[in-house]
Amino acid sequence: MTRGQPVRLVIVGGSDAGISAALRARELDPTTEVTVVVADAYPNFSVCGIPMLIGREVESWAHLAHRTRADLEATGMRLELDTLATGISVPDRQLHVRRTDGSAAAIGYDALVVGTGALPLRPPVDGLDELGPADGVHLLHSMGDTFAVLRTLEEGQAASALIVGAGYVGLEMAEGLTHRGLRVTQIERVPEALPTVDPELGALVRAELAAHGVEVITGTTVRSVSRAAGDAGGRLHVEAARGDATTVTRDVDLVLVVVGVRPDTALLVDAGARTGPGGAVVVDEGMRTGLPHVWAAGDCVLTHHRLLGPSYLPLGTTAHKQGKVAGENALGGSARYAGSLGTQVLRVFDVVVGRTGLREHEALRAGFAPATTASAPDDHKAYVPGATPIATRVTGDTGTGLLLGAQLVGRLGAEVAKRVDTFAVALFHGMAVAEMDALDLSYTPPLGSPWDAVQVAAQAWVRQHGARPGLRATPSGSILDVEPLDLGPGNPGTKALIEMRDEDTR
Amino acid sequence: MTRGQPVRLVIVGGSDAGISAALRARELDPTTEVTVVVADAYPNFSVCGIPMLIGREVESWAHLAHRTRADLEATGMRLELDTLATGISVPDRQLHVRRTDGSAAAIGYDALVVGTGALPLRPPVDGLDELGPADGVHLLHSMGDTFAVLRTLEEGQAASALIVGAGYVGLEMAEGLTHRGLRVTQIERVPEALPTVDPELGALVRAELAAHGVEVITGTTVRSVSRAAGDAGGRLHVEAARGDATTVTRDVDLVLVVVGVRPDTALLVDAGARTGPGGAVVVDEGMRTGLPHVWAAGDCVLTHHRLLGPSYLPLGTTAHKQGKVAGENALGGSARYAGSLGTQVLRVFDVVVGRTGLREHEALRAGFAPATTASAPDDHKAYVPGATPIATRVTGDTGTGLLLGAQLVGRLGAEVAKRVDTFAVALFHGMAVAEMDALDLSYTPPLGSPWDAVQVAAQAWVRQHGARPGLRATPSGSILDVEPLDLGPGNPGTKALIEMRDEDTR
Repeated sequence: MTRGQPVRLVIVGGSDAGISAALRARELDPTTEVTVVVADAYPNFSVCGIPMLIGREVESWAHLAHRTRADLEATGMRLELDTLATGISVPDRQLHVRRTDGSAAAIGYDALVVGTGALPLRPPVDGLDELGPADGVHLLHSMGDTFAVLRTLEEGQAASALIVGAGYVGLEMAEGLTHRGLRVTQIERVPEALPTVDPELGALVRAELAAHGVEVITGTTVRSVSRAAGDAGGRLHVEAARGDATTVTRDVDLVLVVVGVRPDTALLVDAGARTGPGGAVVVDEGMRTGLPHVWAAGDCVLTHHRLLGPSYLPLGTTAHKQGKVAGENALGGSARYAGSLGTQVLRVFDVVVGRTGLREHEALRAGFAPATTASAPDDHKAYVPGATPIATRVTGDTGTGLLLGAQLVGRLGAEVAKRVDTFAVALFHGMAVAEMDALDLSYTPPLGSPWDAVQVAAQAWVRQHGARPGLRATPSGSILDVEPLDLGPGNPGTKALIEMRDEDTR
Repeated sequence: MTRGQPVRLVIVGGSDAGISAALRARELDPTTEVTVVVADAYPNFSVCGIPMLIGREVESWAHLAHRTRADLEATGMRLELDTLATGISVPDRQLHVRRTDGSAAAIGYDALVVGTGALPLRPPVDGLDELGPADGVHLLHSMGDTFAVLRTLEEGQAASALIVGAGYVGLEMAEGLTHRGLRVTQIERVPEALPTVDPELGALVRAELAAHGVEVITGTTVRSVSRAAGDAGGRLHVEAARGDATTVTRDVDLVLVVVGVRPDTALLVDAGARTGPGGAVVVDEGMRTGLPHVWAAGDCVLTHHRLLGPSYLPLGTTAHKQGKVAGENALGGSARYAGSLGTQVLRVFDVVVGRTGLREHEALRAGFAPATTASAPDDHKAYVPGATPIATRVTGDTGTGLLLGAQLVGRLGAEVAKRVDTFAVALFHGMAVAEMDALDLSYTPPLGSPWDAVQVAAQAWVRQHGARPGLRATPSGSILDVEPLDLGPGNPGTKALIEMRDEDTR
């Protein structure tokens, strides 16, 4: 690089982390030459919207683009689509790529941001390696996978589907396929749907699925998928084993496997990057990989969890934040990723379920002394029609009184998602559960209560476990301190009353 | 008081502050003898729900009770209904009362909590002193006022109404009366509806009213109300003066005056309590009045605003919190009221408008260097049908970068109320606007965006005014600090890139 030349920032990955990095760099310094290397032809697509596309709630796949190619190029970034990053020469700062036409090239960089994302997990199911999209057996992660599912649905006129996995994506796909008119069976290995929340709340989600005709089978492991023999009523035959060793079989037109993801780290690992839990690449709070001039962000890296430390926690919100930090630091900045709280929310049919922070077993493992209190405050004053309870589980530390996490399930329209956020901001600031009383939250009878539902849930925890006021006697974070009022001489005030009561019990 | 006798706690006022104090005292010490003196027969009624009762959204006035009389008495408190507190003998701890049957009594106390609330303001309108509920002219504050309005509506078969004032209650009543089938005219003195938010947002509220057939006349002052002559089309004749000195007249069946409230302090002032701005009684953070053994809470006292200091800010949420503090401290506790941020929210027809913290002119007056940035982020990803913009105005301090306030207007269903709360919790903790990027908020395409609308609005402020990173280079409030990663020897990392760039510009 010679004098006067702009910084050449190369980014691998056209999803949340990569594009966020590119946008941040272009925003901070428009002289930066930003090149984004994208393995497919779909940069900046919202993969979170795929279930809504499948469910025909989103009209066209093209709508899933956060920004169109033209939008992105208008910011001044260059897109290298259909281009796979195959290697990094760290010492001479070259990214090696192969285009879908078979040609190879090397792209020189001053700074490299890697956002290769994640790959769908393949559970040990017989037949998964032999059968593929052409047979109606799908994994779902990319836009390419999505088009394949749509082909099975449209060309194969699929009428029934079996979904392996009842996590976030599996549940959303159950809804999407049901909206599309398919009979859906969902099989989950653990005993309750949505294993990322407590089973008491997973049961509410399962009930919502059942109410919409989805057959949910939990505590059951899918063992094999094969072509159905003869006129078995579907093209695919699925066998699964219940915990009691009995077998469940279903014949369906489409099988969808959505059991989670693993970080896509080959590029970074081959270049010498370190990996940690879950096989994700270790980065520091500035998204530095330890390889000179190489940053990484998003689903391929280990995320700092504010309560747990390094964790593998692939989430779009996190990828956006980390990408922004990486893009800034790649230009010489000193941005820090503040850490995740694992905040998540899901809409499935007319139910919304969200969580932030830790559940009890996670907190225990992390060395806390957690306890959880369940409550079901109404979303708004019951005298205004339409009030519904929000099933809430608040987890706090019984030693310190600190809030550790919250899980909420309520009806669509009950502002569950943004109530999760109230807990998330409280957690971010390390509030005690008892301190949540002090928050000045909004109230009008059709939308809340004088003590908001989140405060009612916190109060329920405090009633059960105590405020542990030893830790923090007074709310913190005041911008202006309360000026104590001069009560004048001779006012016995509270002290006198305490003395009076002491006297009474002498 | 002799040994072994329980504490006698007497509470004046059966609304939010008084009942909260009573509940807290009974919860903390069930031996406490709690007597609540209530001027009317409606303890613990939700006056915030009156407009929804008028609009027939709430079926019966009895539903407005937060708790029934039986619920309250089941907690062990004693209710003295239809009983007016007429004086406090501070030295001998006696509360003097007069019952509606004319009888007088004195109630001895060990501790007294006063929650007398507020009284409706009477603007200088000719005829207001002569005409009353029987004529169809109403002020609206109590359940008694509500019954009087209902009588005019039902017995008088009112078809048209004029509302003086377009604040929170005025707007809700415009909706309620419209739902009831009346033609409603609303006259507001200042130039835009809902003067508690910036006029750019008030205009959106006014448009919603207009879309539902409410005639909103702003910048206009009502001068007189009189009986309409002859067959003027209504029973009451209203004259108002526009800013340009032209006169507006309307003939209507019902006139409702809702222009705000003033603290009801006669009882405390007569007993020697000090008053401050707005005539409200001065209390400290423990809700002590300075009178021995007398606490006060709710709409009759001066509230500590976390950004402004002592302010008159009558709100139900505040009354609940202050009442709880007073009830605890009256038993010898040391609870502190953490202060208000003026968080408010209003639903009017299908629009929700909320605010927390300061607007620009309020912040200027308080010595800040404020600036406000408007934005209109969608409530959720636009590719999922139903996304609507949330008109947002973020105010921050240009000197320190601190968040000072936020105002939001959006459609019902856009989770505006709880997004106000996200800002409220951020404000509570004294966050910088730029720090809001670090919050781990929930996201799913039908309910949010990877950067939530509140973060998009904060980012818009930062783009316009800068992050002011001098104040706080890194997000605060981490429970566990991020461990810096050891990048190993010889890694030039960010520093090298900075040096490289410096070299380039030599």
